[in-house]
Amino acid sequence: MLDGTELQELRTALRDVAAERMAQDSGHDLAHLDRVWSNAQRLARSEGEVDLKILLGAAYLHDLVNLPKNAPNRSKASTLAAAAAAPVLRELGFDNHQVAATQHAIAAHSFSAGLAPKSKEARILRDADRLDALGMIGIARTFAVSGALGTPLYDPQDPFATSRDLDDGAFALDHWPEKLFRLPEDMLTQTGKAIAKERVANMRRYAAVLASELGIVLPDSWS
Amino acid sequence: MLDGTELQELRTALRDVAAERMAQDSGHDLAHLDRVWSNAQRLARSEGEVDLKILLGAAYLHDLVNLPKNAPNRSKASTLAAAAAAPVLRELGFDNHQVAATQHAIAAHSFSAGLAPKSKEARILRDADRLDALGMIGIARTFAVSGALGTPLYDPQDPFATSRDLDDGAFALDHWPEKLFRLPEDMLTQTGKAIAKERVANMRRYAAVLASELGIVLPDSWS
Repeated sequence: MLDGTELQELRTALRDVAAERMAQDSGHDLAHLDRVWSNAQRLARSEGEVDLKILLGAAYLHDLVNLPKNAPNRSKASTLAAAAAAPVLRELGFDNHQVAATQHAIAAHSFSAGLAPKSKEARILRDADRLDALGMIGIARTFAVSGALGTPLYDPQDPFATSRDLDDGAFALDHWPEKLFRLPEDMLTQTGKAIAKERVANMRRYAAVLASELGIVLPDSWS
Repeated sequence: MLDGTELQELRTALRDVAAERMAQDSGHDLAHLDRVWSNAQRLARSEGEVDLKILLGAAYLHDLVNLPKNAPNRSKASTLAAAAAAPVLRELGFDNHQVAATQHAIAAHSFSAGLAPKSKEARILRDADRLDALGMIGIARTFAVSGALGTPLYDPQDPFATSRDLDDGAFALDHWPEKLFRLPEDMLTQTGKAIAKERVANMRRYAAVLASELGIVLPDSWS
């Protein structure tokens, strides 16, 4: 196991690689990687024995290949990121086993890849990344995506989709009931699930105030 | 004065013009115009005699020329919008006095133009537009701008700018203390000021939860 100083040095080196090579946008930038690593450490504390070197490598390289929300081959991004991570990890002294374990965590982290995480580190990374889609930071990232794609914040005719199907490609706010509000059920660690529930509750409170600003009442399904 | 039906017909006609001719982004779209008109009606109710025809024309055409946040000639946008509005208003039956009054409200609505609003309608439009920069909708629009420009949501080294100057061109969150938290002082109607204060208080509550998600304490200057 690495001591604290070695872990800090490795973090700096990984962060530098990400800064140089990751395609950044407002929701996928170094701050996102820092938050995921911070979440991952928090989750690791209640998961018993965790290999922090693998978790750290996976946290900082998991978006090394990051495709836009509307890219057709987006489901391949995490597999491509895992492939791109291997030479970086070897360069930083990861042995074959550690490279493979880090690659698995990276490949299995995303929604769209559909790969089951098979290790503790992979489960923690997935939860840590998903937590960053929730809460106040999740709200900020939702609307940053909306601005980047030039799509509306919400449907002006029916902001909370009471009488139409959800369509998060068309309206940013639809992403919450369509995907984000369901994340707590799918969390793989107990601590991750508890934090996810709290963050979703805070998003629902935001939605209630937003509704009042729009002069409408938040539908029961949102509260 | 127009009756309710005539006002609705005029609104539909103005909205169609905006839909066709306004350069839209996630924060400046038909939903923004609808919110500004809704705010304006709310403010008008406590301002005595208000010419709703002028207010309606100004609400739907105030962003007819809308330049990006980082455009060098942005301070001219409201004057250009007023000029572009004139033929539209004449076409819709506004007389010379009404055209001029609507143009004044449009020209004087923006921060950057530095024109004093001289009529009740101009003061209401300015407050109605500024209210839409605050509260939950203001939060959504802040981060949509961030995504559109590809700038970070906040400074990862110092999210709440405790030890550096504010720079809202570099970090979206800096826009709140730099501009938005000051809006209540500059509101021109009593109702507008009261709503603005409440919306700023809600933004500060959002910031406190965001800080806790980032594992830091919100500085006193933000709470």
